[in-house]
Amino acid sequence: MKVFSVSRGVKLYQFGKPYETNAVIIKPELIINEELKYLKKIDDDVFFYKMESDDIVYGLGQSNRGINKRGWIYESFCTDEPVHTPDKKALYGAHNFFIVHGKESFGIFIDSPGKIVFDIGYTNINEILIKPEYPDINLYIIEGKSLYEISKRFRCIIGKPYVPPKWAFGFIQSRWGYKTYEDIRNVAESLDKHDIPCDAICLDIDYMDKYKIFTVNEKSFPDFKNIVDNLKKKGFRLIPIIDPGIKIEKGYKVYENGLKNNYFCVDSNGKEFTAAVWPGLCHFPDFFNPDVRKWFGELYHEFLEAGIDGFWNDMNEPVIFYTQERLESVIEYANKNKTKNMDMSELFLLMDKFTGLMNNHDDYKKIFHKSEKKFLSHYKVHNLYSHNMNRSTSVGLRTFNSNKRFLLFSRASYIGSHRYAGIWTGDNHSWWEHIRLNMSMMPGLNMCGFLYCGADTGGFSCNATADLIIRWTQFSIFTPLFRNHSAMNSRVQEPFAFDIETTKTMRNLIRFRYGIIPYIYSEYMKAVKDNDLFFTPLSFKYSDNISKTNTDQLLTGDSLMIAPVMQQNAFGRYVWLPEEMLLWKTDTLNKKDIKVLEKGHHYIETDLNEFLMFIRPNKIFIFGDPAGNVDSLNCDTLYIIAFVKDKAEYCYYTDDGISFDYEKGVYHKMHISIINKDDDYLINIEGSKDPDLKKLICSIYDKNGKCVEKTVCL
Amino acid sequence: MKVFSVSRGVKLYQFGKPYETNAVIIKPELIINEELKYLKKIDDDVFFYKMESDDIVYGLGQSNRGINKRGWIYESFCTDEPVHTPDKKALYGAHNFFIVHGKESFGIFIDSPGKIVFDIGYTNINEILIKPEYPDINLYIIEGKSLYEISKRFRCIIGKPYVPPKWAFGFIQSRWGYKTYEDIRNVAESLDKHDIPCDAICLDIDYMDKYKIFTVNEKSFPDFKNIVDNLKKKGFRLIPIIDPGIKIEKGYKVYENGLKNNYFCVDSNGKEFTAAVWPGLCHFPDFFNPDVRKWFGELYHEFLEAGIDGFWNDMNEPVIFYTQERLESVIEYANKNKTKNMDMSELFLLMDKFTGLMNNHDDYKKIFHKSEKKFLSHYKVHNLYSHNMNRSTSVGLRTFNSNKRFLLFSRASYIGSHRYAGIWTGDNHSWWEHIRLNMSMMPGLNMCGFLYCGADTGGFSCNATADLIIRWTQFSIFTPLFRNHSAMNSRVQEPFAFDIETTKTMRNLIRFRYGIIPYIYSEYMKAVKDNDLFFTPLSFKYSDNISKTNTDQLLTGDSLMIAPVMQQNAFGRYVWLPEEMLLWKTDTLNKKDIKVLEKGHHYIETDLNEFLMFIRPNKIFIFGDPAGNVDSLNCDTLYIIAFVKDKAEYCYYTDDGISFDYEKGVYHKMHISIINKDDDYLINIEGSKDPDLKKLICSIYDKNGKCVEKTVCL
Repeated sequence: MKVFSVSRGVKLYQFGKPYETNAVIIKPELIINEELKYLKKIDDDVFFYKMESDDIVYGLGQSNRGINKRGWIYESFCTDEPVHTPDKKALYGAHNFFIVHGKESFGIFIDSPGKIVFDIGYTNINEILIKPEYPDINLYIIEGKSLYEISKRFRCIIGKPYVPPKWAFGFIQSRWGYKTYEDIRNVAESLDKHDIPCDAICLDIDYMDKYKIFTVNEKSFPDFKNIVDNLKKKGFRLIPIIDPGIKIEKGYKVYENGLKNNYFCVDSNGKEFTAAVWPGLCHFPDFFNPDVRKWFGELYHEFLEAGIDGFWNDMNEPVIFYTQERLESVIEYANKNKTKNMDMSELFLLMDKFTGLMNNHDDYKKIFHKSEKKFLSHYKVHNLYSHNMNRSTSVGLRTFNSNKRFLLFSRASYIGSHRYAGIWTGDNHSWWEHIRLNMSMMPGLNMCGFLYCGADTGGFSCNATADLIIRWTQFSIFTPLFRNHSAMNSRVQEPFAFDIETTKTMRNLIRFRYGIIPYIYSEYMKAVKDNDLFFTPLSFKYSDNISKTNTDQLLTGDSLMIAPVMQQNAFGRYVWLPEEMLLWKTDTLNKKDIKVLEKGHHYIETDLNEFLMFIRPNKIFIFGDPAGNVDSLNCDTLYIIAFVKDKAEYCYYTDDGISFDYEKGVYHKMHISIINKDDDYLINIEGSKDPDLKKLICSIYDKNGKCVEKTVCL
Repeated sequence: MKVFSVSRGVKLYQFGKPYETNAVIIKPELIINEELKYLKKIDDDVFFYKMESDDIVYGLGQSNRGINKRGWIYESFCTDEPVHTPDKKALYGAHNFFIVHGKESFGIFIDSPGKIVFDIGYTNINEILIKPEYPDINLYIIEGKSLYEISKRFRCIIGKPYVPPKWAFGFIQSRWGYKTYEDIRNVAESLDKHDIPCDAICLDIDYMDKYKIFTVNEKSFPDFKNIVDNLKKKGFRLIPIIDPGIKIEKGYKVYENGLKNNYFCVDSNGKEFTAAVWPGLCHFPDFFNPDVRKWFGELYHEFLEAGIDGFWNDMNEPVIFYTQERLESVIEYANKNKTKNMDMSELFLLMDKFTGLMNNHDDYKKIFHKSEKKFLSHYKVHNLYSHNMNRSTSVGLRTFNSNKRFLLFSRASYIGSHRYAGIWTGDNHSWWEHIRLNMSMMPGLNMCGFLYCGADTGGFSCNATADLIIRWTQFSIFTPLFRNHSAMNSRVQEPFAFDIETTKTMRNLIRFRYGIIPYIYSEYMKAVKDNDLFFTPLSFKYSDNISKTNTDQLLTGDSLMIAPVMQQNAFGRYVWLPEEMLLWKTDTLNKKDIKVLEKGHHYIETDLNEFLMFIRPNKIFIFGDPAGNVDSLNCDTLYIIAFVKDKAEYCYYTDDGISFDYEKGVYHKMHISIINKDDDYLINIEGSKDPDLKKLICSIYDKNGKCVEKTVCL
């Protein structure tokens, strides 16, 4: 073991010769003679930690179960897992960072691209066991005087998160099953007809010619550039899906080029590795090779030229539907049993063989990467495949226009990918439990650097109901990535797909989202710059015992706490207030049913159309008027709801929303403070003001709930 | 449509010529000229009801989702559904009774053995749609002045529930995977070693010779009668599983007899219908034929002679793993695609064909019953198959010893089966969500007459954790059927399978159960006699708005309310008290941490080992000392916790626990009243006293929580 100092509070313990993942961007310095802290290394390269019974474990990014990760076993191995039931161990992301919070609090990051098992009190209720499949790992220990500081210090070593264009904070409508331009146009028209704001519509795999990536089906999407233009004029951007699998088809340009240049992953004999995905048999770009990354990244340029501004990278775990070899052996086995009187064990074995066709780990073991002049086992570095694809895409998009932001979100990822793309949380279901799972993942993802994220609102698989869509959307209006997406053959679930009353509620909700984009964007950008969280568990800011164990409320940005209703047929919920707050129970931006709620437990009735927002004391919530899409948001006038006990403060961030100039310091940070003085309020504006902003209409509440309206002209 | 008067508040609307199910035991009287009330019949034999937005729907027995059935679509078709995710429509039972509760409240029972779809606000949020697949149905409308009365009136027309022997209220340990006598003995010894009370151990399919029903594997269970005797001496009864499928094997007595007598279901050509289940290819007893019921019921006698006192009937939907015909056609299809470059739609079709092998509805359509000299389509009467099996078993067991109760619980059932057997709620999972599902099903099952029920505590499939087992058991100690059961290949989950601390907590919990058996048995028997519920939603007794929407607390018998913790890593929960109650937060019978809690919302901290019981005002909770099993319970001395505002009352029921003499009025009903008079308490005992009972030790709490101890010698 070698020990390195990385940065303030962060040490690296290196075992063997780990593969360089680039997750950490800081070069460490060697220290001699230091013991591994907190963890004990026990047999077989297992790391052990003894928890106190009330320790809490946060993190693990996109992982199953609740905010507190205790009581389950998680597998870090990017997996196309279409059914997120509570027994699942691996999902799409490999996010090996977590924080233990108790008598001693510290963070752990295992930087290694192979499979790792995190047993967080599963085998033994008070024990953490970390089991990397391969012993060569970089183990980081992050210390800090608070959860908040530990999280910040970790974020500091992994680099700044990806920043999408501002329009990507608008509403995105999506469905696997919009088969033609007409389908897309109908969706756009329906949204317009119902006055539902929207910024983009996704193109799922349907748009391609026989699922060949970087092609467009000319029949169903004739004159693609024109389609893109037309929709853009109406205020809708198109976001095509891109998969890694490249169809084996003579004459197909992408395939031919890849083959000619040896750009594909190989098998142990050096022959192109073949497996089936959507298009049937495919080869897979070897994203570990810098030349391949460059080539693949530039394949997006044709779409950019057609006016496309964003993409989603899917299936990049990568998914294997089947290999020809395995399929044949399974069918052979079935043939042997065809006329045999199979008993249950034989039947179940046959069934298992069929379900084992997909994403079989033994197939991953047959893939190799040729980079660095030698064969690198894919299985050993599996968790970096999507990462390198996202990196390829991100760099490729930036080379097209170096100062124009692009939208990119991926399904699979590794820590480090957060610098290149956002993620969505994969193929969830139209289950109420998945609203909660969605909510639970958010702070853990933020801790791992993924800020631009959100779930398939309403659920991807299975059939949604009107109430589910409403309650889920009431949460999603706060997530940076806000997309309604569903699977072919599931019930349609667009905001207008249900009854009139539901459409009205959905319109109000989505308009509400557009109204609060000034706040969401401001908080997002500050979280990027300050290594802060966008969604924060209460315990990161409050030390009382109820906040410590709370898992169904989230601090959202600096000023808000949210408490979504996540249970069917519930028209109210319990909320814990760690301090006095201002409750805004509403369904529209206009309804100002606002009152002060004292510190403590509250049961709050919440009709199906209503949701709960809490403005923290001495904090300021800022928002504007809604619009049809982000480009048409008018930020001349903004509104403020402030809860002023003595002095409330807010730092309002804006920039052009389009370019990377913010990286060079080109942005506005306006400091607003409202001071309660002699029964009146002093409003102070300092710093750099967005020149578009002309007026602030402030509703200022005191601790008795008394409201004073003040207007500030700027 | 013909209209009949059935009993007070109950009318029958008959459409066509419905199949006689025997669910209702009262002969109705014809009325001329009456309109269908509440429901409207619309196109295609669909019944329609317009709900108010705050109407609540209770019932549907063993069905998915919450206590309030709104917002989903349920299919009444007995189904072997091994994965109870929220999207599933059909489970094992067909329980077609529900109550609409709102401005108008009424019950509906659709008595028909074919498939029926109940769309309770799924398609349209405020509409109920009832769609029977076949138009011949008996539709009952039940009216009453309260939910309580509607439920009682329905129970009144379907007859009294099954009553198990008293020992069946003890703890039952079970697992698919106890392969040998040694395995069973080890379990018994471990329970003894850890001082964990238990009454019975289940024998899952492992005990049979090649899964042939009514056989015992001589190798793994040599000298079965002796095994039964030995275990019984140690205080453990054995409960074998019985499936309907009869292995096709020359020389196998049951098969040969069934074949000789034409006792099996047939195909459309009158040839024995063949499908594979556990033993491979099987025939299925035609339980619709009274001769077959008699024959099959008497097959249990051999086990009774060996000393067995109870059984569980499984797989009686009935399950079909595959038919030879379908298997061959699927493999044929696979062969065709073997060397083809399948795209996703072709691959998924192949996968679907394989998963469609099991329980295929088209296979059910190939089964016929020969009773009544004609061919009766199984598919049209599918929901009665298990019912007739349970009836066969129940009658068969009673003919062996007409005055000895037997234990019987089934997986599938129809309303009417509740007179013959209990049920367990099928193959659930070790998911926290399934504790809640377990809890949610209980009141609905009670409404449909099923009182002896419970879930596989700890979950059947997937892997349990120590905390899950504890929290689940904290609920299950209140369910009449209290069994820990799990599947082969899942993590072991016996009460002693985890760490020492967990074993201690489990011991305390199971001992607690034995302590409260006097209450549970008394409440169970009164619920049977009085057509009452054992588990009751708050809204049945409290009319406030919070009680109306509450779905995570249950009234349990007449004196208690329970509020289980059902979320991982939660060490407390919110509880609604519709009136002042006495909170007993405890982990053992000895810990008397009891206090008065005022009406209103409460957050109550609840450590992992603790659970919450609430004693209602002017109610009396009675319990005794624990013991190793029910037979050794000593009921000389019982304890009372009473919450007396003015006068608390309780009716304590006992009987011999073994015979059916209770049906003839041979039982004890002792009326206890405690009156607060001039700062003292008068304790009155009236009625018929159990002669075993000598002493009552009473802890009497007043509204200030002040406790007075009083002992009554009887």
